[in-house]
Amino acid sequence: MSTDKRRFPSLMSYHVYPRRVAYYETDAMGVLHHSNHVRFFEEARVALLRDRGWMEIHQPAGPYVFAVTEQSARYFKPAVFDEALEIWTQMRRVGARLEFQYALFSQASQTVIAAGGTRLVPIDTSFRVAKLPASFLEAVDRESWDEAWPPKPQV
Amino acid sequence: MSTDKRRFPSLMSYHVYPRRVAYYETDAMGVLHHSNHVRFFEEARVALLRDRGWMEIHQPAGPYVFAVTEQSARYFKPAVFDEALEIWTQMRRVGARLEFQYALFSQASQTVIAAGGTRLVPIDTSFRVAKLPASFLEAVDRESWDEAWPPKPQV
Amino acid sequence: MSTDKRRFPSLMSYHVYPRRVAYYETDAMGVLHHSNHVRFFEEARVALLRDRGWMEIHQPAGPYVFAVTEQSARYFKPAVFDEALEIWTQMRRVGARLEFQYALFSQASQTVIAAGGTRLVPIDTSFRVAKLPASFLEAVDRESWDEAWPPKPQV
Amino acid sequence: MSTDKRRFPSLMSYHVYPRRVAYYETDAMGVLHHSNHVRFFEEARVALLRDRGWMEIHQPAGPYVFAVTEQSARYFKPAVFDEALEIWTQMRRVGARLEFQYALFSQASQTVIAAGGTRLVPIDTSFRVAKLPASFLEAVDRESWDEAWPPKPQV
Repeated sequence: MSTDKRRFPSLMSYHVYPRRVAYYETDAMGVLHHSNHVRFFEEARVALLRDRGWMEIHQPAGPYVFAVTEQSARYFKPAVFDEALEIWTQMRRVGARLEFQYALFSQASQTVIAAGGTRLVPIDTSFRVAKLPASFLEAVDRESWDEAWPPKPQV
Repeated sequence: MSTDKRRFPSLMSYHVYPRRVAYYETDAMGVLHHSNHVRFFEEARVALLRDRGWMEIHQPAGPYVFAVTEQSARYFKPAVFDEALEIWTQMRRVGARLEFQYALFSQASQTVIAAGGTRLVPIDTSFRVAKLPASFLEAVDRESWDEAWPPKPQV
Repeated sequence: MSTDKRRFPSLMSYHVYPRRVAYYETDAMGVLHHSNHVRFFEEARVALLRDRGWMEIHQPAGPYVFAVTEQSARYFKPAVFDEALEIWTQMRRVGARLEFQYALFSQASQTVIAAGGTRLVPIDTSFRVAKLPASFLEAVDRESWDEAWPPKPQV
Repeated sequence: MSTDKRRFPSLMSYHVYPRRVAYYETDAMGVLHHSNHVRFFEEARVALLRDRGWMEIHQPAGPYVFAVTEQSARYFKPAVFDEALEIWTQMRRVGARLEFQYALFSQASQTVIAAGGTRLVPIDTSFRVAKLPASFLEAVDRESWDEAWPPKPQV
């Protein structure tokens, strides 16, 4: 079952990354442990960069890497073992900083089960703030960003 | 080397949990991965409950468990493999909800390297909001809570 | 780039599960931490069960769950951040026990970078050894199992 | 409750590392996930090196690091959330390689719940096998190694 594209207002305005809940990511309550949402958000962030062709700026051995300066998440519903999820991601630039926001969508319940955000600064290998290429920043400025987040299904 | 108690204004007002950075918790930048701070915060939260004698209310097989509804963290400095850290924790009650705030302190650099917070609701095994025992809530109300967070060293 | 099917003798005799290395799975040496191979093996095992239609026997809330009684891994080469891997899996039945063996293949280097195995016993929710359905066991007996493992490319 | 030293034949011949099971390390069966034993073994290995004063040879930025070439574990009993465990560790040298063996002991049940082993080779930052200092190797040769493993309580 894939995401019902009709129920969300602007599905194409965000990047969609599919992910199932692994067994080792559940906890003794039988649900996805809240620290793993943070990891799913990172996977979704990397998948967006990869799909946009921007992975050369996110390499441990490269000139830049992104340091997370802030992250947060809100948890609305539990997710269970092997549940098919999607992480919807948007990004924007705020000065030298990059911001990402995420919504974790459950295909089974057709609801948003968590939402979150991350702020990152590009740093060089000496942990100093680095200047990103202008072409990359211009491309980021063409990404979508919804002020109301997470997106709500249209009933 | 232990925490220099003179440099912080009210050390005894928070719970202190020591933790070293494990090798598997570092990432390709050579530093503690930002998702692990969230896990350290949980360990510190559990250690506080254990040290206060409140673990019977946090058992997977018991009548209550705490569901995280919100968490956030700010990252100021990196931590490296085997670095000796301390997590300082405070908790308070806000209605039926519990709130925790944390500061991650590095013994080597004598600085706060990260800070964060968690909001939890007590739920029963059917994921319904549960009422906590009055004696527990009264004890929580005697815990310290600093509005300014993280605490700053007094130079 | 997909697996070059001509170079391996009997590719169709094992289940193939694709997986990229996440950033949080690397360590301070810049490579996939050795504990994560064990987790990748579990994901591959679950993917095999799911693809065969056997997931109803691997549910935390169901009558059976599989307890790992033994696992091992050999590590031949490092894997790096975002590297596209495949986990090749075979399973067999040995009495009441299930055995899985895995090879971790790198698409970039076209080599097997790790191999491992897991032994599991089906248990019920009281942690007692459970008897699996005959139809499932018969189906497992039709799975392939190579005594020489991991498979070697034919040059 | 501490380990009953009388019940084990040669307790002083191995290094003891205490560790509680964190909530995020449990899984949907309510027990410590089998991949985390591998991580506990690594923590115990590092604690042994630290306590012996050998940490300068295990630094990501240093001349040597240890690559795991093989690991295995056998699982006898489950461990649960917040259970107080001890990891008992021995090490020896086999040529250029180091070997560690571990037993995971539960204070509550006074039993060994898992055992395992790791083989490592010292490598330099280019992933080439490195020669360890003679003084270190001589010290390792004075470590205890029991052929029968895990140790059995004397009733």
